Amino acid sequence: MTYNVETILEILTDPFELLGNKEDKWFSNVKPIKDINAKSLDWINPDNPNKQEIAISSKANIIICDKSIDTNEGIKNNKCFIVVENPKLTFVKVVNKLFVKNIQWGHDPSAIISKDASVHNNTYIGSFVKIGHSTIGEGSIIHDGCIIKDNVFIGNNVQIHSGSIIGTNGFGYVQDNNGENILFPHIGGIIIEDNVEIGSNTCIDRGSLGDTIIKEGAKIDNLVHIAHNVVIGKNSFIIANAMIGGSTIIGDSTWVAPSASLLNQIKIGDNVTLGVGSVVTKNVPDNETWAGAPAKELTEFIKIQKHIKSSIVDSEK
Amino acid sequence: MTYNVETILEILTDPFELLGNKEDKWFSNVKPIKDINAKSLDWINPDNPNKQEIAISSKANIIICDKSIDTNEGIKNNKCFIVVENPKLTFVKVVNKLFVKNIQWGHDPSAIISKDASVHNNTYIGSFVKIGHSTIGEGSIIHDGCIIKDNVFIGNNVQIHSGSIIGTNGFGYVQDNNGENILFPHIGGIIIEDNVEIGSNTCIDRGSLGDTIIKEGAKIDNLVHIAHNVVIGKNSFIIANAMIGGSTIIGDSTWVAPSASLLNQIKIGDNVTLGVGSVVTKNVPDNETWAGAPAKELTEFIKIQKHIKSSIVDSEK
Amino acid sequence: MTYNVETILEILTDPFELLGNKEDKWFSNVKPIKDINAKSLDWINPDNPNKQEIAISSKANIIICDKSIDTNEGIKNNKCFIVVENPKLTFVKVVNKLFVKNIQWGHDPSAIISKDASVHNNTYIGSFVKIGHSTIGEGSIIHDGCIIKDNVFIGNNVQIHSGSIIGTNGFGYVQDNNGENILFPHIGGIIIEDNVEIGSNTCIDRGSLGDTIIKEGAKIDNLVHIAHNVVIGKNSFIIANAMIGGSTIIGDSTWVAPSASLLNQIKIGDNVTLGVGSVVTKNVPDNETWAGAPAKELTEFIKIQKHIKSSIVDSEK
Repeated sequence: MTYNVETILEILTDPFELLGNKEDKWFSNVKPIKDINAKSLDWINPDNPNKQEIAISSKANIIICDKSIDTNEGIKNNKCFIVVENPKLTFVKVVNKLFVKNIQWGHDPSAIISKDASVHNNTYIGSFVKIGHSTIGEGSIIHDGCIIKDNVFIGNNVQIHSGSIIGTNGFGYVQDNNGENILFPHIGGIIIEDNVEIGSNTCIDRGSLGDTIIKEGAKIDNLVHIAHNVVIGKNSFIIANAMIGGSTIIGDSTWVAPSASLLNQIKIGDNVTLGVGSVVTKNVPDNETWAGAPAKELTEFIKIQKHIKSSIVDSEK
Repeated sequence: MTYNVETILEILTDPFELLGNKEDKWFSNVKPIKDINAKSLDWINPDNPNKQEIAISSKANIIICDKSIDTNEGIKNNKCFIVVENPKLTFVKVVNKLFVKNIQWGHDPSAIISKDASVHNNTYIGSFVKIGHSTIGEGSIIHDGCIIKDNVFIGNNVQIHSGSIIGTNGFGYVQDNNGENILFPHIGGIIIEDNVEIGSNTCIDRGSLGDTIIKEGAKIDNLVHIAHNVVIGKNSFIIANAMIGGSTIIGDSTWVAPSASLLNQIKIGDNVTLGVGSVVTKNVPDNETWAGAPAKELTEFIKIQKHIKSSIVDSEK
Repeated sequence: MTYNVETILEILTDPFELLGNKEDKWFSNVKPIKDINAKSLDWINPDNPNKQEIAISSKANIIICDKSIDTNEGIKNNKCFIVVENPKLTFVKVVNKLFVKNIQWGHDPSAIISKDASVHNNTYIGSFVKIGHSTIGEGSIIHDGCIIKDNVFIGNNVQIHSGSIIGTNGFGYVQDNNGENILFPHIGGIIIEDNVEIGSNTCIDRGSLGDTIIKEGAKIDNLVHIAHNVVIGKNSFIIANAMIGGSTIIGDSTWVAPSASLLNQIKIGDNVTLGVGSVVTKNVPDNETWAGAPAKELTEFIKIQKHIKSSIVDSEK
């Protein structure tokens, strides 16, 4: 299947400028940088220090870029440039439209869906999926091997990748007089709002008395643990292998880096960034970046790193 | 379904005192603090700094508390107090009895149980569960999607949550003369004693020559890795995303916090606490608390944290 | 089933020396050290400080060891020694041959294999496995509950343990003008070369435009996250709960210890060792050992640990 510049322009909804000759130009693939050939569609990241070189030497004939690129040499080399404000976004939209297979709605015959479940017709339910007394909204995709227990509400356009376990009881105990640990009851549920994406083999526990809540547009990666009664804010990111302790509240548009561990019952603000492998033991205010174990505000963290370095140098003098 | 004070008293096995008027009082739900209403059963945590205020202003009419609470104002407000030694435990027992659905024994038709397996009739085996040449004792619950390989002994009243993999061979290799890594044989098994609970998507590897052992009453959370030949002591807790290296021995009543990593072949004592995200590289004696990476005894750890802080302050003078 | 010294000699391909009387000696089991009995085959690790004592007092009658062992006393005690260069390797070969059950090729009827898949006849496909439009080479074993999505190439003699998810799209987003996060397209695949072993509940994401690659002989443990476009070098080890960020390249014969976190887009050399729980944020040259968070070259790391210790001692004077 080949496409030409017109194909791209039909997908574009934002303003653009076309530079160079668009005639006789076509593409049929997208490739990683090292494999780009004459049949590829290319794009230039405005932050790439070699961006100007790519504009001249890319083997592709059609290139999406922004106006920071000097296209003169490239045009002489018979390339065609589509100049937009956000080349990455434009490239992603084009590739998603042309090269990504749309999943077909349908429920795999091997899936076991409770008769009490409420599952919208326009959904994809994969193989070996089990769905309890729960709700799955329109446009949502539950990949192979996911287990959705009872009392889980999943909104629209949610995607849950393979092997994730949604709705196990949380991990809380109370010791009785014989030293035996009795499970704290978990009769709450889970609310997953619209446009959430959840990775593979991730676990989200249901609330004890209230609910665990994943708000609209939040993105959760693989192998993440989200304990009972946690709240993940709108459009926040929780990256792979992170651990969010019980009843911890995370604000909107916050970034929890891979392998971060957040203690239970803390409050992380909006627009916060938590560093990779950080161990967060305290509340973090809005708009701050914290790193380290135990995590500290970033300038403090950097100060400590520098101080350790310089005091070692001193001691070696 | 509504319940009254008598319902609670029938469940109570420990001494109690009843204060206020129990007539015409009833409840039909339990809720998180912010949602408690006139139909709720409430309880007061003796460690809550606002406990006295809750005793006066809770919207619930029936409250479980201990004798540290001054109930006079509450009684004037027509509340009824059930005074016990351990209000949390009493609340948990009542809720578990009245609001938690009991699982029904039975084997989901989709489960694949080896003809060599020995599975007690009074067990629950969920959907997409595979059980090899292994034993499952009375009252045990194997949730959906668990894989129990061969040579696993599971005692009574054990609960294993969805997606956990019990009995894969451990991860050990020996290099041959060609530089190829040959898998060390794992012909051992796994013993999981009574009253153990294991979370979702957790992995327990079988022993190489001997067994991996999870002792009575141990509680293991989600996404935990337990390597070959590990021993987890009685009533110990291993919290989410923790990693226990091969042949490491953990004593009784020990607490391994989330995301802790324990090197292989070390020995952790009884009543030990290991901090969140700690990296434990040495043996830890009984009754100690260790934190940090590499983990140190807590007073040592705190000393280092304080020292770093104060020496930075010094250097800024 | 009992075996004698001849059985071992038939398995041995490397030079050996036989010391003591081999007649009337037999074994029928292999056991962990504490359980070794007269029916066991034993071996002595040349690095064991008590090795000489074992050579005298082991309850086993047949012992594999190297020439560093003085066998005179043992021979007087009527033991027979098989002296080889690498006793562990010899022991492993014997046990793998005599005591490890070979898996039988076959496809469990519950497995769902796409009609577009290309699966060699000599493979084992376990229960509840789903295989998409992908390739599985000769001698490969896909254990119960694994999900192999589309566009995954698996070579020969690969073993993937239960519950692993191979081929989910990677975790990358671009924000549109409304602040919504659009999934970056992942139309790449995964290449898993010959003799790779992958643990349980591990996740490997497919590449965005190119491929994620696991090279020949690499060994990956349980609960590991391998992001899109990662390359794992030949014969490298990635231990449990490790997290490898997107597009990161790991060289050959490198050791990534448990719970290590590697940032995205970094380059780790050949023969590198990364410490347990390390947070690796930079490129690491060949042959180096790095530890800590953020990770530093080992001598630097040790210097810092020592400096902190000594400056605390100083401050206490």
